This record gives sequence, C-alpha cells and structure tokens, in this order.
Amino acid sequence: MSDTPPAAMTPPNLPSGAVRAQSVPRVFAGAFGLLEPHLAALDRLLQAQLEAFEPEIRGMAEACIDTSGKRIRPALVFFSSWNSTASVSPETVRAAAVVELIHLATLVHDDIMDGADVRRGHATATRAFGSASAVLLGDALFAHALNLATQFPTNEVCAAVSESTRRVCAGEIVQTLRRGSFEVTRSDYRRIIELKTAELFRVSCFLGARLAGSEPAYVDAVSRFGEHLGIAYQIYDDLVDFFGKEDRIGKTLGTDLLSGKLTLPLFALMERLPPSEKEALKGEIEGREPARLSLRLRQMNELGVFSAVEEAVGAELASARAVLSPAFDLRPPTPLLLSLAELLKSQVSALRR
Amino acid sequence: MSDTPPAAMTPPNLPSGAVRAQSVPRVFAGAFGLLEPHLAALDRLLQAQLEAFEPEIRGMAEACIDTSGKRIRPALVFFSSWNSTASVSPETVRAAAVVELIHLATLVHDDIMDGADVRRGHATATRAFGSASAVLLGDALFAHALNLATQFPTNEVCAAVSESTRRVCAGEIVQTLRRGSFEVTRSDYRRIIELKTAELFRVSCFLGARLAGSEPAYVDAVSRFGEHLGIAYQIYDDLVDFFGKEDRIGKTLGTDLLSGKLTLPLFALMERLPPSEKEALKGEIEGREPARLSLRLRQMNELGVFSAVEEAVGAELASARAVLSPAFDLRPPTPLLLSLAELLKSQVSALRR
Repeated sequence: MSDTPPAAMTPPNLPSGAVRAQSVPRVFAGAFGLLEPHLAALDRLLQAQLEAFEPEIRGMAEACIDTSGKRIRPALVFFSSWNSTASVSPETVRAAAVVELIHLATLVHDDIMDGADVRRGHATATRAFGSASAVLLGDALFAHALNLATQFPTNEVCAAVSESTRRVCAGEIVQTLRRGSFEVTRSDYRRIIELKTAELFRVSCFLGARLAGSEPAYVDAVSRFGEHLGIAYQIYDDLVDFFGKEDRIGKTLGTDLLSGKLTLPLFALMERLPPSEKEALKGEIEGREPARLSLRLRQMNELGVFSAVEEAVGAELASARAVLSPAFDLRPPTPLLLSLAELLKSQVSALRR
Repeated sequence: MSDTPPAAMTPPNLPSGAVRAQSVPRVFAGAFGLLEPHLAALDRLLQAQLEAFEPEIRGMAEACIDTSGKRIRPALVFFSSWNSTASVSPETVRAAAVVELIHLATLVHDDIMDGADVRRGHATATRAFGSASAVLLGDALFAHALNLATQFPTNEVCAAVSESTRRVCAGEIVQTLRRGSFEVTRSDYRRIIELKTAELFRVSCFLGARLAGSEPAYVDAVSRFGEHLGIAYQIYDDLVDFFGKEDRIGKTLGTDLLSGKLTLPLFALMERLPPSEKEALKGEIEGREPARLSLRLRQMNELGVFSAVEEAVGAELASARAVLSPAFDLRPPTPLLLSLAELLKSQVSALRR
C-alpha cells in the first residue's frame, strides 16, 4: 500500500503532479490524459466530503484528503467503466472517491506503523496530530468512505469495498507479523501483496466494470486484470525501495531492509548469494546485525537482481494482458487498461541506472 | 467507550457473567433475563463471523470477539425492536452483531491508545499482538462489521452505522486532543461523550426500532432515549473510575486523573475546591505535578462529589424517560427500555461506599 511518490504511474518525463495540477500546461502522454475531467470531478467530490466530518476533525481530514496523490485506484475505476462517450458519470466518480478514501485511510495507519514523518512532502497525520489521533482519524476516513458507498442504490459497492478492506488489513497484519523474520517464502510474499495491494486494485476495476453494466465475464476479466496489475505495481514499489532515486521518490532508500521486510529484490539477492553471505544477510533481516545497505545494493547490481525483478514484473503484466486480450480487445476499457500495464512496465525500466 | 467490567448493566447481586454463561444457573432479575435466547443467537452469529476472516488473522479476531462482554448495545437493539411475541428475528440479531463488532473494534483501538494490557481478564490485542497489528485488527473488525451490515436488503443499516462510527471516532479524537489540558469545559465534556459513547447507544436503539417497523415518531423517541442513556452510562463509567471497587471492576482506579482526562467527577471536584487547591489540581491534570489520587478521592468524598455526579446521571436518565413516557407507554419496548434506565440508576447508587 505504501505508494511511492511522486506520480509513479504518470507518463515518464512528465513534471510531477502535472496530471492534475490546474496551473501546469496540460501535456498528457497516454491514457492518463483522458482522465482530466474525471480527476477534476473526483477532486471536487473529495473536497465536498469534508463537510461530512465533525467541525473538530475537519481540518485533520482535509490534511489527509490532499490533492497530490497519484489516484491510481480512481484511474482504474474510470478506465474499467469506460464507454464510447467517455462521459464523467456521478456513479463512477463516487466509486473512485470511495476507493481513494479507503486508500488514504490505510496510508494514515501505515504511516503510524512505519513511524513515517513525511508523505508527499507534507507531515504525516501521525507526525502532525500524534499516533493516537492518527489511528482514530484513519478510522473516521474509513467510516466515511463506507458511508459514501451507501449512496449507491444497492449494497453492492459497500459490500465489495468492506470485504476488500478487511483483506487489505489481513495482508498488512501478515506482513507486520513476518517483519524481521527470515522464515518467509516467496509464496508468503505473494499472498501478502495480493491482499495488501492487489485487492484494492482488483475491487477498483470490479466497481468500474460493474457500474458500467458490463457482462459478468468481462467484469471478471477486468477484475483479474486489476489484481495482476496490483501485484506488478507492488513489486515495482518494492524495487523502487532499492533502485529508486532518493531525490525523485522523496523518501529514504532501503527501508525494507532496515525494517526487516523481505521483498522480492531481497529474495532474488538471497538466491544469488553464497551461503556465508546469505547467513550474514539473514542476520541483517532479523535485526541481529546492522543492515549493510550499500553492500547489498552493490551486490544487487552485480548479481542481476534488477533484471530478475524486472522479469517478475513483466511476467505479472503479461498475465494481466492475457485476461483481456485478445478475448476482449474490442471493449472500450481494454486498450486503456493495457496502456496502464505498458506505463508501469516503462516505469520499471526507467529505474535501471 | 471504555466499558467497565464486569456486567455493569446486569442486575445488582448477579454473579458476574451470569447473564450469558451457559453453565451458571439462569437466575435473571429484570429485563435482561428476557434476552437469553437473543444473546445466545448473537453469540452464535458472532462466532460464525470468524469464518469470514482470512485464516492468518482468524485467531486474532476470535480473541477480540470474546463472549464475556456485557452486550449493552445489542440489548438496546433487541429491546428497541421488542414486540408482543418476543421472537428472535435474524435481522435484529444481525444488527446487534454489527453494533457489537463496531464496539469491539473501537475497544481494540482504545486499548492501544491507553496502553492497556488487560481487558475482561484477558490480554488486550495490543498487548498480545503488538500495537501495529492491533491497529490493523481493529480495522479488519470494523470492515467486517460494515460488511455484515450489507446483508440487509437496503443500505440503511450500513449508512447509519458508518456515520455513527465516524462520530464515535470524532469524539475520541476530541478527547485525545484535550487530554492533559485544563481548558476543557463541561460543554466540551458533554460533546465528547455524546459522540464517543451516546452515538452508538443511539444508533443501536434506532436500528432496533427501525427494523421493528415502528412509526417515525417512535423511532425518533427511542433513538433519543438511547442517546440520553448513553450519556448517563458514560458519566457512570467516569464515576466508576474514582468510586469503583478495584477488585470488582478489574482495573486500576483514577486512570482519568493520571492520564489528564477531565471528566464530570473532576469538574465537580474543581468547582468545590478553594482556589489554591484548584490550581494544584490543574497542575496534576496538566501533568506538571504528580497526581495525588488518594487526596483527590478523599476530597471528592468530603465535598459531596459523588452526590453531585449521581444527580447528573439522574437528570440525564429523567430526560431519557421523558422522551418515552407517558407518550409511548403502551409500546412493548417502552417498559423494557425504562427498566434499563432504572438498572443504571441502581448501579450508580451501588457505587456509594
């Protein structure tokens, strides 16, 4: 869930935030450019939600509902509901706001657990208001997300997002329990990222397709696309933690190693290290030894870890493509969703130094 | 929200836990005795919810959905939906489970903020699993509560409980922000307890009356009764913090003074202290001076604080009664709800040493 700022899924070479900033020239590459009116409508709806919060906590909620996010999950809702007219429907904007609010709520709680002080250039809620208030503020954001979901005529949206949220939390719990442990398998890793990240990608696609009235087979395919894309995105995010450029992603590198979190780059490194070095890395993961980040980064570069992880992302994106194409090539959402997969792929390549 | 164990709203002189323990003789005094089948059905439904949690977190969820709670909010759902047949309807049991799960989720998060190790004789989630997991577990419980709420045919239950939850969180946030501050007024205190406690009492009554198909005027009256009862209950809970018997309530006394939380007993004490002593108490609330609990307790006894707070509870319960009686004396829920108010009143009197 820990998205990498800034706009990781915006087209490369685009000024950070340009997709949504009103004062920046509107130079859009690729599918994201189509979303300008949708994302503007989303911003208006998110801002309007502040009225629902009690006056005492409205300012705190406002600090969380910032306008600098990448809005990846809303984009999935919009693209999955795309039709030939490309109109902005109130229902999809509402669904996009629901998933974004849930995402923002999870970020507030994530930052507490990570002790993070800064997100997207601003103080985190836990830093600004204290961890106790941040726990409650996350709860309030989540409660309001579900409340917004009840504005649909049926229970379906609320049922889908509440179930997804429980799964996201389950994934985060498993990850938390495994932190600092070397007894984590690749299959555990996949299970964790399926739950903590891919689930909300999946439900975003599901809601878009459902609200567009798509037939069940396409709703299912789009949902599975979202799940694969979410897994690929999380692997990318874990790669950024080692191969990102600090000044660009706005956070410290190597935090996963330092906090004892086994991610795919570390699995790939382990598998390539000689036994004695592997034992030493184990000590670093388990916190018995100080983490030697620069050594591990050098080894990752020397041992082809980047390529191995890039390949894993590529395989996941291929699975994502396969559920949509060629079977559903003619549906309006398909090319847009596929372009997101391409965009992610190019983002991964851009990390190569 | 911090309920005082054991069964504070069970009839006096009843063995702790007897209302729901299966192996204890079923000697019920008053209205609670009518609820035996309802509470048994509630237990079954709560236990059945465990299946919905991911296997990795099921045991953790089970530890939170214990069977030793007082089930006050479920009782309010059941009584507010009472009709002449007193049958156990699946809808009211489900609504009762929803409000209880939300209550349990808030307790999990409360215990993190209070650093509480023990609740109802068991290790708290934050103690057992760590605070990070407890944040997420509370989230998962809350998400599941809302998911269960989507099993009703319409969005109404989900809308009501998600709004209530946001209000409960807002109340807790305000309380957290005011902790250690002397700049809190009686009106702030009332606002806090309206949100953090009375709101869930209110919505429990609302749901019961709505599910029973009561006319709007009665739904409204029952809801307002619940709100007044919740305020009275929180004042009682705050009184227990000073006047409870440690061996009986199973927790340390004076925690509100020690943590700098201004509650009604402290307001009543302040108003009765000479200026110099008031200044000293201010230092204790603000954490500049060590809290002198035994002195403050003695002063409370000498200066009639107990009677003053008892009177405030009595006034709130009188307001509760007035919205139901005599206008709605003939409705089946009315005498049951009024008996709960009487029960609370007798619990308060029983605290007098």
